Amino acid sequence: MARQEQRSACPIACALDLLGDRWTLLVVRDMTLLGKTRFSEFLESPEGIATNVLSDRLQRLQDSGIVISGKDSEDGRRVLYAMTKMGLDLLPMMLELAVWGAKHRPQSGVPKELQERYLADKDQFLSELRERVKRSSSSILPAE
Amino acid sequence: MARQEQRSACPIACALDLLGDRWTLLVVRDMTLLGKTRFSEFLESPEGIATNVLSDRLQRLQDSGIVISGKDSEDGRRVLYAMTKMGLDLLPMMLELAVWGAKHRPQSGVPKELQERYLADKDQFLSELRERVKRSSSSILPAE
Repeated sequence: MARQEQRSACPIACALDLLGDRWTLLVVRDMTLLGKTRFSEFLESPEGIATNVLSDRLQRLQDSGIVISGKDSEDGRRVLYAMTKMGLDLLPMMLELAVWGAKHRPQSGVPKELQERYLADKDQFLSELRERVKRSSSSILPAE
Repeated sequence: MARQEQRSACPIACALDLLGDRWTLLVVRDMTLLGKTRFSEFLESPEGIATNVLSDRLQRLQDSGIVISGKDSEDGRRVLYAMTKMGLDLLPMMLELAVWGAKHRPQSGVPKELQERYLADKDQFLSELRERVKRSSSSILPAE
């Protein structure tokens, strides 16, 4: 996955130039659906991402404008990561991927209640989730 | 991306075990949104997939139950590929990925009319597309 490489005008291919990598999408999942904001939290995810891979993917996501980072307003020594507006727009795609996984990968576990709420009213579910994810960036100090 | 590897119970991680690779998703795009059914047609896509990568990804997609292949009923020497029901269920995710790409990758081109039709009535658009993709498998001879 070369940075900013573009080989076609297809919107899917262009999106995959930034996202077409399993680890990238797992970091996006951590930040959108699991509410994680810190490097150490991403490392703890059960898939076991390596430190150097995580650093690389976080840098790429920032270079692409999908993620921002900054100092924690409550503890200036701590760095937090959060989705930008561009990153928040990935929520519908991530949720459809989750629905597919829950349906076709029987070994996966997802709370049935959560899935039913999403399928009953996708727009409402998305707007609640979007607000929650937005809040996770509120402790990031603006860059000087 | 190891075959059938599973490192967590998360439906997104489980889905990405099968799909978390740029080339895999480009082949899925070719078969779902571009109506392609033949090896030579996938090779012609502007992203320039290599023959060995294409063979590998088609085999993995078949092993996963996302794609089937068979002889062309009109020309028995020709092999056709098509989505299974499990593969068709990827349509919502692929369309949301396309929407994101069209919005955030300004260098990508997508017919405005097509995008507006999708956003105006996603369910209707999906059901039309699903029928069209289904038809592309109708020329595949059933396995003996």
